[in-house]
Amino acid sequence: MRNQPLRVIQYGCGLMGVVIIRYLVEKGFEIVGAIDNNPDIIGQDIGQLAGLGRSLGVQVEADADAVLDRGADIAILTLTSLMGDMEPFFAACAKRGVNAISTCEEAFFPRTTSPEVTARLDALAKQNGCTLTGSGYQDVFWGNLATVAAGAVQRLTSLKGASSYNVDDYGIALATVHGVGLTPEEFDEKIAQANVPSYAMNVPGWLAGQLGLTMTGIAQVLLPEFATAPLESTTLGRVIEVGQAIGMTARATAQTAEGVEIVMNVTGKVYRPGQVDQNEWTLSGEPQTLIRVVEPKTVELTCATIVNRLPQVAAAPSGFVTLESLPPARYLPIVA
Amino acid sequence: MRNQPLRVIQYGCGLMGVVIIRYLVEKGFEIVGAIDNNPDIIGQDIGQLAGLGRSLGVQVEADADAVLDRGADIAILTLTSLMGDMEPFFAACAKRGVNAISTCEEAFFPRTTSPEVTARLDALAKQNGCTLTGSGYQDVFWGNLATVAAGAVQRLTSLKGASSYNVDDYGIALATVHGVGLTPEEFDEKIAQANVPSYAMNVPGWLAGQLGLTMTGIAQVLLPEFATAPLESTTLGRVIEVGQAIGMTARATAQTAEGVEIVMNVTGKVYRPGQVDQNEWTLSGEPQTLIRVVEPKTVELTCATIVNRLPQVAAAPSGFVTLESLPPARYLPIVA
Repeated sequence: MRNQPLRVIQYGCGLMGVVIIRYLVEKGFEIVGAIDNNPDIIGQDIGQLAGLGRSLGVQVEADADAVLDRGADIAILTLTSLMGDMEPFFAACAKRGVNAISTCEEAFFPRTTSPEVTARLDALAKQNGCTLTGSGYQDVFWGNLATVAAGAVQRLTSLKGASSYNVDDYGIALATVHGVGLTPEEFDEKIAQANVPSYAMNVPGWLAGQLGLTMTGIAQVLLPEFATAPLESTTLGRVIEVGQAIGMTARATAQTAEGVEIVMNVTGKVYRPGQVDQNEWTLSGEPQTLIRVVEPKTVELTCATIVNRLPQVAAAPSGFVTLESLPPARYLPIVA
Repeated sequence: MRNQPLRVIQYGCGLMGVVIIRYLVEKGFEIVGAIDNNPDIIGQDIGQLAGLGRSLGVQVEADADAVLDRGADIAILTLTSLMGDMEPFFAACAKRGVNAISTCEEAFFPRTTSPEVTARLDALAKQNGCTLTGSGYQDVFWGNLATVAAGAVQRLTSLKGASSYNVDDYGIALATVHGVGLTPEEFDEKIAQANVPSYAMNVPGWLAGQLGLTMTGIAQVLLPEFATAPLESTTLGRVIEVGQAIGMTARATAQTAEGVEIVMNVTGKVYRPGQVDQNEWTLSGEPQTLIRVVEPKTVELTCATIVNRLPQVAAAPSGFVTLESLPPARYLPIVA
């Protein structure tokens, strides 16, 4: 694929990390380090951990600084969902001049929701000549899928996305910020009152940027969904009782100077048996257009997008770069 | 939208042309000429013709040379479906240094199906410093919709498109090349035996180019569909009798050096009442992904894509340029 394969560090070897490790190997990237603080997997060979059935000669290490000090072209960060939590991890890469791409949902377009953190990381990355960014499922299915469809539309009055995923697929960090397992009172206090910007809030700015629109305002509402029957959550490790939250829909609504309303509905909840992920975009105006992704495999699509993005990110300008400023993610062929 | 709006000639003022004229006005382009050889509309003001309810001070003229001699930044050609028929129209623009974009389906990616015509036009456009290209519905819904989705996929084994449209929406040129109204014997002789490359044949090369794949072979089959009940065709101006063709599916199947099979199914037929356009892409491999456009408004999407593409085409390199080499079509806001 490349004369000189990119040298990659996988930072976070949980649910997403092990899929990414396999994808990296299949696409000919060189994995030079793997980091995780889970005692159950420290010291394990990542080839075995990722189910490749063979060792790759790279073990999971707990000492992130030691791994990053050895250097790499790019690090993949599959760690947490919010920029405040991600800052030290991004910074650890940036100060060593190591490019970094993260599945952190807020990192998709963090300038409006975490401007100070983003500005600090942007400056640090520019000082050290490297690129920091966020990508994943949202890059394609909340991003370019909508903007590409908009290129075929005469008049947009609104652009509305609706996406759902099973929080049980993503680990405890995601479940927590979705209020899974909380009572109505707890949800109101910890989630609705706190009103932490949801991932939906990071979508309209990205879309407006790609479409050349000027965003003039944005607001969110968080709409919990409560269990009407007991529901097992593998991530919580317990049954969610009737009346406790199984997750929520976050709806961000943005206005633009050009009169196009941009709405993103993100539903993250523990699924009932048989439920599948949803993703669709409704472009209203002329003509009305509806694009539906049928049963998207969100985990795999997230991991594949990250891996396909690596060459573009490694070649991108320095700074905290959001990917509406680059061409769409591009398929890389399998080499192994 | 632009300090200096692009000056546009609309060449062909039929079913598509009148929609494009309205779209151009709404997006702030300056229409400097309109050409058609239909005696019923020659001399009509294009604002009235396009249903704007007001005159634009530009009349439909039959003398194409006279209109093109007055110059323009770009001409929109909504004329015929095959490159052989289009060559004189593209050449008339190119020799005057006027950029041209056409809804001609073959022009989407004509290098494999009409290499000599394309090479001649490419040379002529380069001599005169202008760009010739093909776009329309296929640019987004047979092109970037699939390649953007592929950017989220780890392993592609095949990429299969299926698209249908009502030939009654597009005029007689399209109906003729789909064999509408022919008996089985006539279809076999005039369509299947002649085996003229269908529009499906122009899709795999475009997709392979965007995906960085090397196409190693391509073949098509033409599958007629016959009326099982009498069916009125507005374009033919008569009833299609039982046993006569209502249209066909053209299936192009291409192989690539990277092992990805690319298949395009294009169904063009006279619809029964209640039938709607279909468009979907199935990406097989890991993960399996299905993207469906629900009831696409093919005419409006074609015309809007053409208009949204104008600034990119006017700024593109000289020659016969196919649009897999440019970024995706980009939404332009309404200004009027």
